[in-house]
Amino acid sequence: MFDVTRYATAAQSIIDAGRFLYDRGWSPATSSNYSARIDPDHVAITVSGRHKGQLTAGDVMVVDLNGRAVQSECTSSAETLLHTVLYQMFPDVGAVLHTHSVKATVLSRLTQGNTLTVEGYELQKAFSGVKTHDAVLSIPVFDNTQDIPALAEESQAWFREHPEQPGYLIRGHGLYTWGKTMADCLRHVEAFEFLFECELETMRARP
Amino acid sequence: MFDVTRYATAAQSIIDAGRFLYDRGWSPATSSNYSARIDPDHVAITVSGRHKGQLTAGDVMVVDLNGRAVQSECTSSAETLLHTVLYQMFPDVGAVLHTHSVKATVLSRLTQGNTLTVEGYELQKAFSGVKTHDAVLSIPVFDNTQDIPALAEESQAWFREHPEQPGYLIRGHGLYTWGKTMADCLRHVEAFEFLFECELETMRARP
Amino acid sequence: MFDVTRYATAAQSIIDAGRFLYDRGWSPATSSNYSARIDPDHVAITVSGRHKGQLTAGDVMVVDLNGRAVQSECTSSAETLLHTVLYQMFPDVGAVLHTHSVKATVLSRLTQGNTLTVEGYELQKAFSGVKTHDAVLSIPVFDNTQDIPALAEESQAWFREHPEQPGYLIRGHGLYTWGKTMADCLRHVEAFEFLFECELETMRARP
Amino acid sequence: MFDVTRYATAAQSIIDAGRFLYDRGWSPATSSNYSARIDPDHVAITVSGRHKGQLTAGDVMVVDLNGRAVQSECTSSAETLLHTVLYQMFPDVGAVLHTHSVKATVLSRLTQGNTLTVEGYELQKAFSGVKTHDAVLSIPVFDNTQDIPALAEESQAWFREHPEQPGYLIRGHGLYTWGKTMADCLRHVEAFEFLFECELETMRARP
Repeated sequence: MFDVTRYATAAQSIIDAGRFLYDRGWSPATSSNYSARIDPDHVAITVSGRHKGQLTAGDVMVVDLNGRAVQSECTSSAETLLHTVLYQMFPDVGAVLHTHSVKATVLSRLTQGNTLTVEGYELQKAFSGVKTHDAVLSIPVFDNTQDIPALAEESQAWFREHPEQPGYLIRGHGLYTWGKTMADCLRHVEAFEFLFECELETMRARP
Repeated sequence: MFDVTRYATAAQSIIDAGRFLYDRGWSPATSSNYSARIDPDHVAITVSGRHKGQLTAGDVMVVDLNGRAVQSECTSSAETLLHTVLYQMFPDVGAVLHTHSVKATVLSRLTQGNTLTVEGYELQKAFSGVKTHDAVLSIPVFDNTQDIPALAEESQAWFREHPEQPGYLIRGHGLYTWGKTMADCLRHVEAFEFLFECELETMRARP
Repeated sequence: MFDVTRYATAAQSIIDAGRFLYDRGWSPATSSNYSARIDPDHVAITVSGRHKGQLTAGDVMVVDLNGRAVQSECTSSAETLLHTVLYQMFPDVGAVLHTHSVKATVLSRLTQGNTLTVEGYELQKAFSGVKTHDAVLSIPVFDNTQDIPALAEESQAWFREHPEQPGYLIRGHGLYTWGKTMADCLRHVEAFEFLFECELETMRARP
Repeated sequence: MFDVTRYATAAQSIIDAGRFLYDRGWSPATSSNYSARIDPDHVAITVSGRHKGQLTAGDVMVVDLNGRAVQSECTSSAETLLHTVLYQMFPDVGAVLHTHSVKATVLSRLTQGNTLTVEGYELQKAFSGVKTHDAVLSIPVFDNTQDIPALAEESQAWFREHPEQPGYLIRGHGLYTWGKTMADCLRHVEAFEFLFECELETMRARP
C-alpha cells in the first residue's frame, strides 16, 4: 500500500514535466515515458501511449519495483523495467525521464561503437557531482531492441559499475536520465540536450 | 443532408489542429488544408486560402466525397480531391491533414526517385500497426503538379496497392497523412516531421 | 491632414505585426521597421530604435510620402525613404515590412551577384498573382549602404521595371516586402522566410 | 547600506531578464548569471545554481564591488568577480548578463586563437556607438578556467585597453555582455546571438 498524497504529488510532477518536455519537442507523437518514486517500493509512471503534452491525472499509474501494476487496470510503458531497475539499484533516485528528441536520436545513430564522449563544456557541471568543465563525460549507447528485459539487465550491469553516470542513450531511440528530484532530472535532460546539440552543430560546421 | 452537430465537432477539430500546426511552422503563409469526416458521405474541409493559425467557424465548409460543396458558396482547396479519394477508399479514415513544412519540402526535393526510405527509428512505432523499429518505412514521393484530378487518380491507384501506408509526399510541396481520428492524424504528422528532421540532420552531419 | 481613426488603425496593425515578427525572431535587437498606409499622402511608420516586440501607441508616427514627419517630433527610421518610394510608385500598396532574420541575412551574403533565384516550390503561390509552382522567382539583392537616398533611388528604378515583384533583399541586412493589406504583407514575409530556410537547408544537406 | 527600492527594482529587472533568456534557450540547466547595479558600491546578482526561467525574489542577492555578499547568507555565482570588475572599471555600466547558448558555446570552441571577427552585418549597429555595418567587430575569446580571480584580472586588463568593447566569450562556456541599462544589455545579447547564429549558418552552408 502506498501513501495517496505522495502518489498524487509524484503524478503532478510527471504531468508538469510532460508539458515542459513536449513543448521543447523532446517527447513527440506519444513517445517517451516518465516516472517518479512514491516510496521505497512504489513508483508513479506514465500509462502507455498517452500524449505527453496533455497528461492529466488519469494518465499516471503506480507500479512496484518489478514493474507490475498496483491498484490499476492500465498498462504502463513496455519500457517500465528500464525505469524500475534504476530505482532498485539506486535508493536515492527519485525520478527517471526517458525522452525522444531529434538530437538524441540522430547523435546516437551517428555514434560509432558504444560510447559517446564529450569534454571541455562548462555545462558538464550541470550534472550532480561534476565540479569542472575539464573532465570527460562518457555516455553509453545501447543498441535498440524490443526485448526490454534483456536491455534492463544489460543496463543494470553497466550502471552497477558506473554509479556516478547520469544517463544513457538507446540508438535511434532516445535518452534515459535520472536524479534525486524531478528538478534534478529535468536539469539533466536540459544539460544532455544542450551537449547533444553542441556536438551536432560542431559536426555540421566542421565537415 | 448531414448532422449539424457532427459538422460542428469536425470543424472544431480542424480549427484546433490548425492552431497547433501553424504554431509549429508546418502550415505557413495560408498554405495547407485539413479535413475531417462528418459521415460516410460528407467531409468538413478548410475553405481555400485562409490563415491556418487563425481559423474560425467561417473557415470550414462541407463537401461530398466527390469534392463538391454542400450547402455552401465557399470554395474549398484546389486539392480537395486528394482528401476525398482517401475517404472514398478507406472507410475508417476520419481525418486527413496536408501540411507544408520546410523539412518535408526540402527532403522531398532532395529525394531521388519516387520513394523516401527510413528505417531503424523507434518512432516508426507511432504509426498505427507498427510494432518494432526494425522495419523499413517507404514513403512515396509524387511529383508536384497543378493537375489535381490526375494526381488524385495516381495516388488512389498507389494506395489501393498499399492500404497500410500512413502518408505520402508531393515534391517541393508537402505531406499528406491520415488517421482514424484527428488525434491519430496529428500523431502521424508529428512522427513524419520527426523522421524528416532526423534524416536532414543526418545528411548535414555526415557529408 | 490625415484621418485620426485611419492612423490609429494603421498603427495597431503595425504594433500587432511587430509582436508576431519579433516572436519569430525576424526583428531582433530593435532592428527592422514597419509601415502602413493611412491615405494617399500619409503613412504610419515605426519610430527609430524601438523594441519591435514591445511596440505601443507611442512607437508609431506619421510621415508624408517624402518621408517627412507629420505632427510629430519623433524621428522615423533612417530607412524611411525605402518605404515611401514604394507607396509613391504603387498606389495599391497598403503596407511595407522590413525584417531582419538570420536566414535572410546569411542567404543574402552567400548570394553571388545581384539576384537570388528560387523555383519549383509550391509556396511561391503565396505571392499575389502567382498561380503555379512551375515558375522562377528572381529576388533582387542590393548591396548594403548607409546612403539610403541612393538606395531608395536604385530600388525605385528597379521596381518600376518589375512592378510584379513582391520583395527584395539588402545584403547582410534583411528583407523588404509589401502588399495591399498588412495581412498580405505578413503572408509575403512568411513565404519569403520559408523559401530562404528551404534554400539554406538544401545548401547544408547537399554540400 | 543600499536603497531597498533600488535593490528591488534591480532584482525585478534580473528576474524578467531570466524569463526571457531562459525561454530563448540561452540559459539552460541552471547555467548563467545576471546582475544589475544598485548604486556605485552595490550590485544585485543571481544566487548560485538557480533555475533562470523561474527566478523569484529570493533568488537575487546583493554583493559589493569586491564580490562579497551584503546582508545575505546566500552564495552568489562562482563567477561574481567577472561581473564586479566590469562595474568597477566602467561607472556607467548598469547591467551585466552572462549567458550560455549552444551557438556561443560551439562558436567559441570552433574559433582558433583569441579573437572572433565579424563584419559587414547591419545588425552590428545594435551595439551602442556603432553607426555603420561597414566595420569590424573583434570579440575576445578567453580560455575557460575554474580560476575565476585570474580570469577576472585577465579580462580587466583587456577591457581597460578596449573600453568600447560590448562583450566577450569564454571558450566552451558562454557570453558576457553589459550595457547602461538592462534593456541595452538585453539588446546586446540578442545582437551577439544573431551574429553567432549567422556565422554558424554560414559555416554550414559553405563547407
